[in-house]
Amino acid sequence: MLNIKGLNKVCVIGMGLLGASVTMAAMRAFPKVLIVGFSHRDSTRKKARRLNTANHIAETLEEAVRDADMVILATPVMTFKGYFRQIASFLKSGCVVTDVGSTKVCVHKWAKKNLPKDVYFVGSHPIAGSEKRGVEYARDDLLAAARCILTQTPKTNKQAVKFTKGFWTALGCRVETLTPVKHDKIYGFISHLPHITAAAIVNASNFEDMKFAGKGFIDTSRVASSPADVWTDILLTNSRNITRGIDRLARQLRALRGAVHTKNARRIAWLLEKARAKRQTLIEYKLNKRELM
Amino acid sequence: MLNIKGLNKVCVIGMGLLGASVTMAAMRAFPKVLIVGFSHRDSTRKKARRLNTANHIAETLEEAVRDADMVILATPVMTFKGYFRQIASFLKSGCVVTDVGSTKVCVHKWAKKNLPKDVYFVGSHPIAGSEKRGVEYARDDLLAAARCILTQTPKTNKQAVKFTKGFWTALGCRVETLTPVKHDKIYGFISHLPHITAAAIVNASNFEDMKFAGKGFIDTSRVASSPADVWTDILLTNSRNITRGIDRLARQLRALRGAVHTKNARRIAWLLEKARAKRQTLIEYKLNKRELM
Repeated sequence: MLNIKGLNKVCVIGMGLLGASVTMAAMRAFPKVLIVGFSHRDSTRKKARRLNTANHIAETLEEAVRDADMVILATPVMTFKGYFRQIASFLKSGCVVTDVGSTKVCVHKWAKKNLPKDVYFVGSHPIAGSEKRGVEYARDDLLAAARCILTQTPKTNKQAVKFTKGFWTALGCRVETLTPVKHDKIYGFISHLPHITAAAIVNASNFEDMKFAGKGFIDTSRVASSPADVWTDILLTNSRNITRGIDRLARQLRALRGAVHTKNARRIAWLLEKARAKRQTLIEYKLNKRELM
Repeated sequence: MLNIKGLNKVCVIGMGLLGASVTMAAMRAFPKVLIVGFSHRDSTRKKARRLNTANHIAETLEEAVRDADMVILATPVMTFKGYFRQIASFLKSGCVVTDVGSTKVCVHKWAKKNLPKDVYFVGSHPIAGSEKRGVEYARDDLLAAARCILTQTPKTNKQAVKFTKGFWTALGCRVETLTPVKHDKIYGFISHLPHITAAAIVNASNFEDMKFAGKGFIDTSRVASSPADVWTDILLTNSRNITRGIDRLARQLRALRGAVHTKNARRIAWLLEKARAKRQTLIEYKLNKRELM
């Protein structure tokens, strides 16, 4: 029964940069499927309609999810629990519910507690986005060649995972599967920690000094321009991994500080070269996988 | 006598990414001036010739700087003292000597001590470059629209500053002047600190986790791919400002850690929003100044 070829209606809740990019990519990938978007904001619904980001922009949550074979949450993570409760009674039996949130342990927990037993939850995290926000920045190729991490627990329905995988694959993503615990650990270190660091660097700088900044500062701090509300939710729902990450980073900063303070040229060079070589290997890996051009 | 219109010969010592970009841009800006490059490496001299990066690639330092109206050092900062000593006896009286180094206090000190009294030293720091290295990545537009900071002390010859300003302006740079002390303080915070942070983030990450990285990690860590030897010299020659910068950053990281650890949503949001708004103002400033496109 759960077959991506039988897909008739997909609903995306939240028409920001990522949500609207999903509907746009889905319209291209599934031209015969009804792709519906919803936003709780009147102004966003209007913009989403004007920009043709979905086949239909629903006025109510009920209208949005009713009869959908797949519902995708694309709002800030902390709103998911409320949405699960609100949509629970409208969902079709056998519907696959997923999301595009950046943390996964809490989402699985909320889904288990609040969604009806006859719908299937699978976690999704497409590794795509930008520091920009809003439906006006959505693009139908934002997800092309992106990784998409699916999360499943031992209780997750295997057919629903396959179905969700089929959906993201059709949108151009390279799909991989992790447990929610493993996912939050990895992304705490390699996504949430760089985010915190970018914000800390900006907060540590004088504005008058920043005017002299070159491309290095601009790139290093880019993600600090991301929406604060979206990221507050991410940090709140992955606090343990993030504080661990900050502690790891602080140790590395102390190592470099010590070498610089004592003007230990050999040790500075060793620490910088270690980072350079490691990042070089990463870039080659990403180029090989065509995740970088 | 010191007039940029009277320029006949310019010599750049060091034909890496930045040095060769300077000779290429100078050939375009001053088609009637002899632009000479030098590298102590035979292989670099050969590549620099093959790629037509200068009118002439000299075989010896003496040949390179003899009769030059302007000599520009574009090698790692710690080599400057040695080069000043080696070129001192070959320099024409009235020659302007400058550099493209990222730290300035030490360079002024070495110039004062090692250059003859009848040549003029002015510090230069074009805010351009990339994480790449080598003459093969040089581009004649690398300096276009870049800031170039000139550094001068009360003893620096004003005519020589004007001359140097004329040179970089002709290459498309927006020139500003600072004291070496002020320069090193500002760039310690907004260039050398982000560099250290990028290296620390890479060193703090497991390679297996890094494979899952998205664009945020890639951008935040970009400068960690820069040549370790060049950056070792920068960190060695600006250690006090850098350790101060690390301490400032550590305070901001502790503030964020505390808010995340206690799940204080309001405080997390406030810290992230402060960074977001500050960086947004910076981006608008840079767009206005046409330093970003």
